[in-house]
Amino acid sequence: MQIVQEQKSFGGRQIRYQHESSSLNCSMQFSVFLPPQAEQGPVPAVYWLSGLTCSDENFSSKAGAQRVAAELGLALIIPDTSPRGEGVSDDENAAYDLGLGAGFYVNATQAPWDKHYQMYDYVLSELPALVEAELPLSGKRAISGHSMGGHGALVLALRNPERFVSVSAFSPITNPCDCPWGHKALGAYLGNDRHAWARYDASLLLKEHGSALPMLVDQGEADNFLAEQLKPQALAQAAEQAGADLTLRMQPGYDHSYYFIASFIEDHLRFHAEHLASN
Amino acid sequence: MQIVQEQKSFGGRQIRYQHESSSLNCSMQFSVFLPPQAEQGPVPAVYWLSGLTCSDENFSSKAGAQRVAAELGLALIIPDTSPRGEGVSDDENAAYDLGLGAGFYVNATQAPWDKHYQMYDYVLSELPALVEAELPLSGKRAISGHSMGGHGALVLALRNPERFVSVSAFSPITNPCDCPWGHKALGAYLGNDRHAWARYDASLLLKEHGSALPMLVDQGEADNFLAEQLKPQALAQAAEQAGADLTLRMQPGYDHSYYFIASFIEDHLRFHAEHLASN
Repeated sequence: MQIVQEQKSFGGRQIRYQHESSSLNCSMQFSVFLPPQAEQGPVPAVYWLSGLTCSDENFSSKAGAQRVAAELGLALIIPDTSPRGEGVSDDENAAYDLGLGAGFYVNATQAPWDKHYQMYDYVLSELPALVEAELPLSGKRAISGHSMGGHGALVLALRNPERFVSVSAFSPITNPCDCPWGHKALGAYLGNDRHAWARYDASLLLKEHGSALPMLVDQGEADNFLAEQLKPQALAQAAEQAGADLTLRMQPGYDHSYYFIASFIEDHLRFHAEHLASN
Repeated sequence: MQIVQEQKSFGGRQIRYQHESSSLNCSMQFSVFLPPQAEQGPVPAVYWLSGLTCSDENFSSKAGAQRVAAELGLALIIPDTSPRGEGVSDDENAAYDLGLGAGFYVNATQAPWDKHYQMYDYVLSELPALVEAELPLSGKRAISGHSMGGHGALVLALRNPERFVSVSAFSPITNPCDCPWGHKALGAYLGNDRHAWARYDASLLLKEHGSALPMLVDQGEADNFLAEQLKPQALAQAAEQAGADLTLRMQPGYDHSYYFIASFIEDHLRFHAEHLASN
């Protein structure tokens, strides 16, 4: 992996890397924040999965997460949201919710998507193996994300509790089997088999398998996507049925933007730091 | 003035306005952050002037200033960096350092610029009169900015000390009479009269007139523009000759980006809050 860009931030290093991804079969960029503590030895990492249309740059530049990460000694690992490059299929109408910028953190099984759209494997396995081999990381991980990335974070953590000590999300798509974004993306990437969809649905996974993971979810009440796409009550009901450790906070007046994320990212990083320290 | 966009941020209101500017002779947008305290009564304001290529959105989304402003009860007033619109002249090659996005906070005297490029009057008079009439502002003001906007903040404050209680800057163009950016912009907007240029040069103004204003300047040592364009030592020498109250902090490893601004904006807002409270 090669450094594309590096900037000092809150005493730490904000770095953008490029590498050839074997799981995605293309060249990828991702961003990392290494806190000042990483100069002294390995630090735990919070993975951040971004939402539709984003790259690794949105969270890096807009969330204000580096300040808290520098205080707490947390690395931030921020992948892109889909495979990229000229050879990578996009939606034929360049829709914002399918194809480039909209990988949905699944392993696609349907042509033409299956050649590159393997974001689940990329985020779960390839990227951690790469950064833990190359950077001063302790191997302890937590995961968070926004919207499509909140969905990704919940699904990855619920299916792989041995890999993450805690999970959080802002405005996650909690029940993609029951919303238009989910129908479109899961239908395209996975075909018509609803059993395949269910493996990428946080609410269904939680209802069926339960979870011992600590979960924190923030949802703005003025979010335009709340009722039709996000449906936090589906996750809350699943957590209640499963007896899971979910804290769902409805935040009056907040929308779907990075202004919302910036307002509460400190709470999420402190939540993860606590669990990273005690595991 | 009309609200174009509004988002809740750290318990306050991040608002983008549009209005017809009489000094600039065009329609303008600007952003405001109103802290939660503004619900209870008038609050003081910190004006922020952005650098080359920016609009009001860069600082709003990338600096992380709202968190501290919400804590301290400060409004943030964030104008655009030039007049805008189809009828507004731009550099014939659309250069990034002249014309649109590059008003340099001067009152242009040369055609074709003089019709719209009156950013000095706009920021000094029109915008404060407008927002203080329409918003819960106390009329107490401080001013800050970055690069071209650091130049603007210093010049506006040094020439109008009765209007601002304190001034700060990140990576300011301290001596535009002696750098390529300044030569190009001041030459275009003001013509060849070096006396006219000197009225927009913070180092020359400070040397000639002195100042009792508290001044805080942060400058990254890894800033690519440091030696050729920014020249903080010119300002430091002028301050020393004038016996002015300048704190210049050279910050090792930091560059010219918003990652630098985000790392130190808290110090600047606390500096201004202290002077706003005691004046």
